[in-house]
Amino acid sequence: MNMVNGFDMSAVDELDPELARIVRRRADLLGPAYRLFYRNPVQFVRAEGVYMYDAEGNAYLDAYNNVPAVGHCHPKVVEAVARQAATLSTHTRYATEMILDYAERLLATFPPEIGNVMFTCTGSEAVDLALRIARFKTGGEGVIITENAYHGVTTAAAEISPSLGPSVPLGRTVWTVPPPTGTTDHVQAAIDDMERHGVRFAAFIADSLFSSDGILPDPAGFLRPVADLVRERGGLYIADEVQPGFGRTGDAMWGFQRHGIIPDLVVMGKPMGNGMPIAAVAARPEILAKFGAQVRYFNTFGGNSVCVAAAAAVLDVIEAEGLQENACVTGQYLLETLAGIGSSRIGAVRGAGLYAGVDIVDPASGEPDGEAALAIVNSLRERRVLISATGPYGHTLKIRPPLPFGAQHVDHLVTALAAIMPR
Amino acid sequence: MNMVNGFDMSAVDELDPELARIVRRRADLLGPAYRLFYRNPVQFVRAEGVYMYDAEGNAYLDAYNNVPAVGHCHPKVVEAVARQAATLSTHTRYATEMILDYAERLLATFPPEIGNVMFTCTGSEAVDLALRIARFKTGGEGVIITENAYHGVTTAAAEISPSLGPSVPLGRTVWTVPPPTGTTDHVQAAIDDMERHGVRFAAFIADSLFSSDGILPDPAGFLRPVADLVRERGGLYIADEVQPGFGRTGDAMWGFQRHGIIPDLVVMGKPMGNGMPIAAVAARPEILAKFGAQVRYFNTFGGNSVCVAAAAAVLDVIEAEGLQENACVTGQYLLETLAGIGSSRIGAVRGAGLYAGVDIVDPASGEPDGEAALAIVNSLRERRVLISATGPYGHTLKIRPPLPFGAQHVDHLVTALAAIMPR
Repeated sequence: MNMVNGFDMSAVDELDPELARIVRRRADLLGPAYRLFYRNPVQFVRAEGVYMYDAEGNAYLDAYNNVPAVGHCHPKVVEAVARQAATLSTHTRYATEMILDYAERLLATFPPEIGNVMFTCTGSEAVDLALRIARFKTGGEGVIITENAYHGVTTAAAEISPSLGPSVPLGRTVWTVPPPTGTTDHVQAAIDDMERHGVRFAAFIADSLFSSDGILPDPAGFLRPVADLVRERGGLYIADEVQPGFGRTGDAMWGFQRHGIIPDLVVMGKPMGNGMPIAAVAARPEILAKFGAQVRYFNTFGGNSVCVAAAAAVLDVIEAEGLQENACVTGQYLLETLAGIGSSRIGAVRGAGLYAGVDIVDPASGEPDGEAALAIVNSLRERRVLISATGPYGHTLKIRPPLPFGAQHVDHLVTALAAIMPR
Repeated sequence: MNMVNGFDMSAVDELDPELARIVRRRADLLGPAYRLFYRNPVQFVRAEGVYMYDAEGNAYLDAYNNVPAVGHCHPKVVEAVARQAATLSTHTRYATEMILDYAERLLATFPPEIGNVMFTCTGSEAVDLALRIARFKTGGEGVIITENAYHGVTTAAAEISPSLGPSVPLGRTVWTVPPPTGTTDHVQAAIDDMERHGVRFAAFIADSLFSSDGILPDPAGFLRPVADLVRERGGLYIADEVQPGFGRTGDAMWGFQRHGIIPDLVVMGKPMGNGMPIAAVAARPEILAKFGAQVRYFNTFGGNSVCVAAAAAVLDVIEAEGLQENACVTGQYLLETLAGIGSSRIGAVRGAGLYAGVDIVDPASGEPDGEAALAIVNSLRERRVLISATGPYGHTLKIRPPLPFGAQHVDHLVTALAAIMPR
């Protein structure tokens, strides 16, 4: 099935009867493509800040969900959504200024070279649009990705998402490389091989934190020679900031900034509207010029008034509550505290800001142990703490809480984790 | 530029200075791919029911926007959105029942053969997912579309959207046919030609009202032999209900129903959440079975709690206010009243429910006159009535108001239209 922490439908009879009823009803209505989290799926009825609550009123510490980035149901975002939904909910073919005010604020968080932004509803749509733009601009088709990348679920995005598993084939013009943390050799070889096959190079795309490749933030700067090489060979550098963006890495608003690069195209999504469907492609204007002149782009819900209102409120809250700074400070404390667990099961602790990875290994061999990681994820769920796992072996615990996560929440999480780890 | 009723940026200096400032600012921030409506773009600050309001408080009669289908800013939808946003906004990997309650209600509006529904955020994503499913199920790549079809803006959806113009190439495995209103011969020939080229047939897809092909509802039933042929030749029938769905055609909830067919896959979107980004693919379970078992589908914002709450409220309002019946009754009155204008400029009046097309022709030759249609659209805009135009020649007035449109609104619209039409 190839999904880390997916519920296995064949185990439905082992669930509590009421939950089993819901899970079966779900399969009947939504079909078999949907996957629940956990061996024992969980049902929430409300959420607030960094906690989610089940029907019995039990609180779960949320150290997983990066979409409600400013906290679940943040009152400022809720208020902005309610107010806008009651006033005007429309599209981008009328000359409203609200979307321009937001675009201006958003672009101000980027280096000045990134001067345009186009709105979609999902990260998948943003990745798909970035590919359309890159292929139009370069006249090429070839795309380079990392070996366990995830970039989305449209046809074109799924074709560059090997982490979806072997039933979703990579595109014929897609080449994979190991995450280039040390050398650009593989990227160089991929471009050579691509050209040898008569495929013109269009773009390199990577999640700036390599989330699905196992969370690889360091050493800061390692993407710089990649970006230089990509440009030298006529391709575009696309930074996938769907996960790292909007302050999560703590040191900057965008994950690419820790690498000292300026991408050609940037895709963003998940935390942008704190759960409201809004995503975007930011671009150097010279990359968009010909595409925009010859190809119109209209996304009915992309940049609609209500989602833009939510996104503007998210920027307000990030600033007002110092959430980027909090990601930096609490993230540092999180890494230190995780490192302090000192278990033979922990191979390495990595992270940037409030995005941490903890490698779970076989204590004897030191080899990645995905099953042990999965057991930990499920065990924490029973202790009402939400995390997941990632990476090609599924052995890296993925800790990625809402940004208002504080030291007390780190203590809660790490205490729960330490309690189930062998020494 | 190939967009009906798109503002031409080279005319920006002719606008009112304040509007010109906004339009320039927009181009600076959003880049050149965005198109505004009208020679004289319009800016709205609020909307309610079937009216939109500019900053001076002027009311515009909305006979164009099909997304706010139950009326702009409908209080029931606004309330549902506000309440849900304040309670829980999450994704489909927790076992919440709310999405199941909605899925059950939605599926109850379909023939019993359509038993599953999968959620996306946009019609483009739904079309893209339907293509993924159809290609996976059939093992084929070939898709048949109509000559001026529009199905969306992802890479795969744009490849089947000739109405986007010559700068967006059709896919190499895409064949076009004229809208099959009379005979299946062209579809038969397309499948033969496709197979002669070694491309296996995967699917036929059409908007059940042929909106971008010029609005072609009649004769009811003409799609039946197409669906039969498509199945016989091993392909799937995909009904694009993004525009016709949710009661707009008046006689039924779904446009395919007037043709007496049961599609394999149905895509829906625009009016589903009255502006909130929610869309879906409904399917015969046997079409989804293998895809779902081998390919997981997760769309972070697809089927999120807030958009589902909006969609449930939309169904409530359609039922409580009898909006499908209203589309039927008011739609009939609209067609009669349009036909009663009796201008030499009007070649034909067609429609189903609250979706009407009026062909504008050269009075002397009877030939399609897209320029005259555009002048009418712009003239109505100056009279504060919103419509647009469609079809391969852009000569078909497109009248597609929110569903609470009443007889008094028809009178307002048709009086304004008649006043600018020659006898």
